[in-house]
Amino acid sequence: MKISQKAQACNLSPMRKFHPYAVEAKAKGKKIYHLNIGQPDIETPPNYYYAIQNFDNPVLEYAASPGMPVLINAIQHYYDKLGIHYEENEILITTGGSEALQMLMLSILDEGSEVIIPEPFYPNYNTFVKSAGGVIRPITTTPEGGYRYAFREKLEEAYNENTRAIMFTNPGNPTGVVLTPEELRTIADFAKEHELYVIGDEVYREFVYGGENLATIGQFPELADNAVIIDSVSKRFSACGARIGAIITRNKELQQNLLKFCQARLSVATLDQVASAALYRVGPDYFEKVRKEYKLRRDTCYKKLLEIPGVVVKEPQGAFYMMAALPVDNADSFQKWLLTDFDDNGDTVMFAPGEGFYATPGRGLNEIRIAYVLKQQDLERAMDLLALGIKKYNETHK
Amino acid sequence: MKISQKAQACNLSPMRKFHPYAVEAKAKGKKIYHLNIGQPDIETPPNYYYAIQNFDNPVLEYAASPGMPVLINAIQHYYDKLGIHYEENEILITTGGSEALQMLMLSILDEGSEVIIPEPFYPNYNTFVKSAGGVIRPITTTPEGGYRYAFREKLEEAYNENTRAIMFTNPGNPTGVVLTPEELRTIADFAKEHELYVIGDEVYREFVYGGENLATIGQFPELADNAVIIDSVSKRFSACGARIGAIITRNKELQQNLLKFCQARLSVATLDQVASAALYRVGPDYFEKVRKEYKLRRDTCYKKLLEIPGVVVKEPQGAFYMMAALPVDNADSFQKWLLTDFDDNGDTVMFAPGEGFYATPGRGLNEIRIAYVLKQQDLERAMDLLALGIKKYNETHK
Repeated sequence: MKISQKAQACNLSPMRKFHPYAVEAKAKGKKIYHLNIGQPDIETPPNYYYAIQNFDNPVLEYAASPGMPVLINAIQHYYDKLGIHYEENEILITTGGSEALQMLMLSILDEGSEVIIPEPFYPNYNTFVKSAGGVIRPITTTPEGGYRYAFREKLEEAYNENTRAIMFTNPGNPTGVVLTPEELRTIADFAKEHELYVIGDEVYREFVYGGENLATIGQFPELADNAVIIDSVSKRFSACGARIGAIITRNKELQQNLLKFCQARLSVATLDQVASAALYRVGPDYFEKVRKEYKLRRDTCYKKLLEIPGVVVKEPQGAFYMMAALPVDNADSFQKWLLTDFDDNGDTVMFAPGEGFYATPGRGLNEIRIAYVLKQQDLERAMDLLALGIKKYNETHK
Repeated sequence: MKISQKAQACNLSPMRKFHPYAVEAKAKGKKIYHLNIGQPDIETPPNYYYAIQNFDNPVLEYAASPGMPVLINAIQHYYDKLGIHYEENEILITTGGSEALQMLMLSILDEGSEVIIPEPFYPNYNTFVKSAGGVIRPITTTPEGGYRYAFREKLEEAYNENTRAIMFTNPGNPTGVVLTPEELRTIADFAKEHELYVIGDEVYREFVYGGENLATIGQFPELADNAVIIDSVSKRFSACGARIGAIITRNKELQQNLLKFCQARLSVATLDQVASAALYRVGPDYFEKVRKEYKLRRDTCYKKLLEIPGVVVKEPQGAFYMMAALPVDNADSFQKWLLTDFDDNGDTVMFAPGEGFYATPGRGLNEIRIAYVLKQQDLERAMDLLALGIKKYNETHK
């Protein structure tokens, strides 16, 4: 029996690579501080659970394929408050941002089509692009440059006749980079000029820490046919297990083709849609509170990293990740060592080694992604463990 | 901006084709009896709702990518009772049977790979196969032959060097055909000989009406590497809106590749998994009761169809669909006419015209699929409307 070439070209998640070592370390009684996955500890607004408890149809029926009106209307209202109006048929509900990405790639990529993506990037983009027959054309960024990517000349270098789209996470996972209005404009102009889709994965939109206005690729009227927003309730409301996302676009031809995939999979889970609509009823105070909490964590991580000799890091402006270069020979070996050979009073720490976030071989070898999803006190301890680990590792690996 | 060739090759659902006419008919005050969609009216076991109400994690977290142990164990237990034991890692939880099919096709099909599927078939197979670059090679069946398809010579005719898999819905949607043990054996032997995947879409397994044992393609030990079961709670427990399915296979290489897609989309909805595990706690009396209800409906539909002059139909043995040839020139025109020009005391009826269930052009033009998902009394009225409609349509269309 054969396995498809596209499946073979995909990989298992680099974030799960050290899972077996973590299991072993825990079995030996070690406590692990997890900075390796983006599962926030923030409570899901209880509206979610209330809405489900009030659901009273004794038959759990299919929802409409493009999504339930109650949720589409809630998302419309959210964007209205950002100053951008979408019609109902411009919002398609998906099973998480993941299904949104999968459907979108299947709809726009042929064998050998290229997507420009700044690296380091969210590793699952690999699977969505490759399984649709596409190729990622990376714009390489560096720790020293604060991982900024929106430069006209970089875009031109990456572009060729096979390019179909530019895609980026903004605010950035794994880098925390938030595009400035000028940078967003640079990308918008480039996409318009070359008639490219410009795909903004904006699931972290609410998490910006410098008082910036919340920005979106949807704000440019001239990009009506180019712009596609990937959205999700997972991070916005700490509801990762709901698997509710959306594709938002004004491009009618694209909508019609996406709808084919929506119809083929019939519908998105009914209760999760009803409950996600209720999430959107939280007030601005909810976002302010969460933003404040993450900002505190960002500040803690950043400050602690600056104190470690040899670390290269610039202050990230958003999401709940930061990327840093460590003064170690190899972040993979270092992570493995932290789980197998290191502890401080029985404690150790996990992060995501950088290599898996790059498409270019050999990049990111001494970098790590930190997800600051732990409470303040745990975060401080985790960062101290990182500092101590680097010191000890370098003493024993010369 | 370009749309991919594979998306262009897909179609909107043929089941939704007459939706605009239905909306218009309803606006004019007509009552429509819906036999066109497979949304059962049977109540979802309340275990589902109880389980959700008892969920007490304040953070709605991601589940594990391959599925939650509580649900995997429930499915293991269900198959144990059928006499087939699966290990935990042989069951991958998916977002409905739909995601199972999508992941599977992406994992096994390259550009031009072929899948043998008896026609008429579930129309969404088109999108899953085509979006993975594959081609459906149909085995054509007929109303006169009771839509039976498992013949050695038919399989040989359809096979060529590009064939990767044989796929079928058993019990059948749209035909209601249930494979006999000998037919299942014919397919199993053929798949083994030619080293093909044999994909049993067995979501209707519990719905057989002749007292047959519940059968599965998983029952052949020699097919350990070939057999893949597509499963779902949607029809089994009348929980279509849960979007919980599974891929079951002992093929380790396939498992590893499917896992890449599972990890890329992170997880399946947490609450729906917890609640679906609770569904599996219903006793055999639940299935007996539901089976009895559907059998009564099957008998009603079949008896009523036999009374209509010129209809060709054989007694279907399972699922909750039947396919029949009508004495009309064209089932599409007839359906449209039923919505726009016909009523009996303000009532009319909808079914799914047959053409969309075939891959071969020109097939199924005078056939329809009937989903017997209505209560007995409504079903009788609907079938009377069909009989009256055929009579009147033929009087005015000569």
